[in-house]
Amino acid sequence: MASRTATTPEVKPLRFVLRNLNKYIYIRLKDNTLLYGRLAACDTNMNVVLMEAEEKNNDGETIIKYGKVFIRGNNIIYFQFPDLPVS
Amino acid sequence: MASRTATTPEVKPLRFVLRNLNKYIYIRLKDNTLLYGRLAACDTNMNVVLMEAEEKNNDGETIIKYGKVFIRGNNIIYFQFPDLPVS
Amino acid sequence: MASRTATTPEVKPLRFVLRNLNKYIYIRLKDNTLLYGRLAACDTNMNVVLMEAEEKNNDGETIIKYGKVFIRGNNIIYFQFPDLPVS
Amino acid sequence: MASRTATTPEVKPLRFVLRNLNKYIYIRLKDNTLLYGRLAACDTNMNVVLMEAEEKNNDGETIIKYGKVFIRGNNIIYFQFPDLPVS
Amino acid sequence: MASRTATTPEVKPLRFVLRNLNKYIYIRLKDNTLLYGRLAACDTNMNVVLMEAEEKNNDGETIIKYGKVFIRGNNIIYFQFPDLPVS
Amino acid sequence: MASRTATTPEVKPLRFVLRNLNKYIYIRLKDNTLLYGRLAACDTNMNVVLMEAEEKNNDGETIIKYGKVFIRGNNIIYFQFPDLPVS
Amino acid sequence: MASRTATTPEVKPLRFVLRNLNKYIYIRLKDNTLLYGRLAACDTNMNVVLMEAEEKNNDGETIIKYGKVFIRGNNIIYFQFPDLPVS
Repeated sequence: MASRTATTPEVKPLRFVLRNLNKYIYIRLKDNTLLYGRLAACDTNMNVVLMEAEEKNNDGETIIKYGKVFIRGNNIIYFQFPDLPVS
Repeated sequence: MASRTATTPEVKPLRFVLRNLNKYIYIRLKDNTLLYGRLAACDTNMNVVLMEAEEKNNDGETIIKYGKVFIRGNNIIYFQFPDLPVS
Repeated sequence: MASRTATTPEVKPLRFVLRNLNKYIYIRLKDNTLLYGRLAACDTNMNVVLMEAEEKNNDGETIIKYGKVFIRGNNIIYFQFPDLPVS
Repeated sequence: MASRTATTPEVKPLRFVLRNLNKYIYIRLKDNTLLYGRLAACDTNMNVVLMEAEEKNNDGETIIKYGKVFIRGNNIIYFQFPDLPVS
Repeated sequence: MASRTATTPEVKPLRFVLRNLNKYIYIRLKDNTLLYGRLAACDTNMNVVLMEAEEKNNDGETIIKYGKVFIRGNNIIYFQFPDLPVS
Repeated sequence: MASRTATTPEVKPLRFVLRNLNKYIYIRLKDNTLLYGRLAACDTNMNVVLMEAEEKNNDGETIIKYGKVFIRGNNIIYFQFPDLPVS
Repeated sequence: MASRTATTPEVKPLRFVLRNLNKYIYIRLKDNTLLYGRLAACDTNMNVVLMEAEEKNNDGETIIKYGKVFIRGNNIIYFQFPDLPVS
């Protein structure tokens, strides 16, 4: 297990999210909806814009295609970042 | 999949929304209502004004015609922007 | 469909609402109540004062007459502005 | 129907409420409770103090007498001001 | 009924509450719990400290004795002040 | 019953809580969970850190041992301070 | 039981959390989900980033592997810090 040292940089969560701009991510909403799309924008309220957004079921199958969507941050439970190298 | 580069502009979500002023958009409310209309105004709370607003069912059929409406932002789950070229 | 141009004025939603002062509007509350009355005041929280306020059913029939009411903004889903010319 | 003119004063909703200090008003709470009493104080959160407060049923009959109460604003749906001349 | 005059002092609700420091008050919580105790502290969020706090049923009978409690303001519906002279 | 006098110090609720740092307290959460532990930290949002935290049932029996926990303030209904002398 | 003394440092809850950066923690969400992972980032809203995140059942068994996740703070009930020495 990694140990914390004095040199650990304290990365803010929003900064972590913004590192994933233009990556494809999953977003779980409070009403249990699962969205998948390319992260185009995010602010401090976690309002986000997704491009090529799709609603997925829990098996990862596409249910609905939305295209460009803005999601108000207060509806969001989590973002999941598929494990891709961050440039 | 697009890769993030140092030149990616960090567009704020609200700015993205305002690019769609006067476009026709869908708005999903927390009570599951789906509205469609022309986006006339939006602020940082995502309060919006829609012109020629209509309530749609999930098949895209018009249920009720509202005309001009103001929607308080905290009721909004998402805006969906039909895929039209942005001037 | 209207196209966005550089000359589109970005009208704030609250300013749009205030243009309708003294007009008769509908207000839908989160508990599904539908009110109708003359808009006498509104602030940035969308707290409003209605004069000659009435509760309507969805057929537009008056159920209860309230007279002067103040409504706390966080209970509001939308304002609907009947389509009258704005002076 | 009244028309808006450039001379319409934009009265803030809180100011409207404060004009009714010491008047008897009805307050509807989110849990549907209806209170009646004399408005002794109100602030920008719509926290209020009622004197001689009573809980009423929807027929206007007194159910419980509370006397002096402070009500936290976020529980409030509306204030109703019986139609009395404002001095 | 009292009439409003220019000389009516506009007492803030919090100031009204603080006049009752060290008095015994009732507090109704959003989960319908009724507490009774001596008001020891209150801030602008209506966070309060009660001493000798007891939970009461609606007949005024003590159900549980808590002693010293801090209650987070956002759980509070109302404070009821038994009608005692305020020094 | 204690009477309020001009010399009553107005102790802020948070200050009251902080007097109990390192004391064992009970915390009731909105989901009705009852926790017991040593208060290690608290801020203005009532975010708290408990050491040796345990979940209790209403009979005071330990159900689960958690150890060190951080609790987000908006989940908290009340803190109960067992009646121990404050140094 | 530890006694409070004038020398007790008042550690802020967030600072306590940040001491556990890069440690493995449990997070309970309001929808009762239990997550486990390495704490990579946290801000004042308790927005957090977990690495190697997994959903656990109450017996500690892994149900779903998420990898990198951002969790919006307002969904969080508590963080549990397994009892490991803090460097």
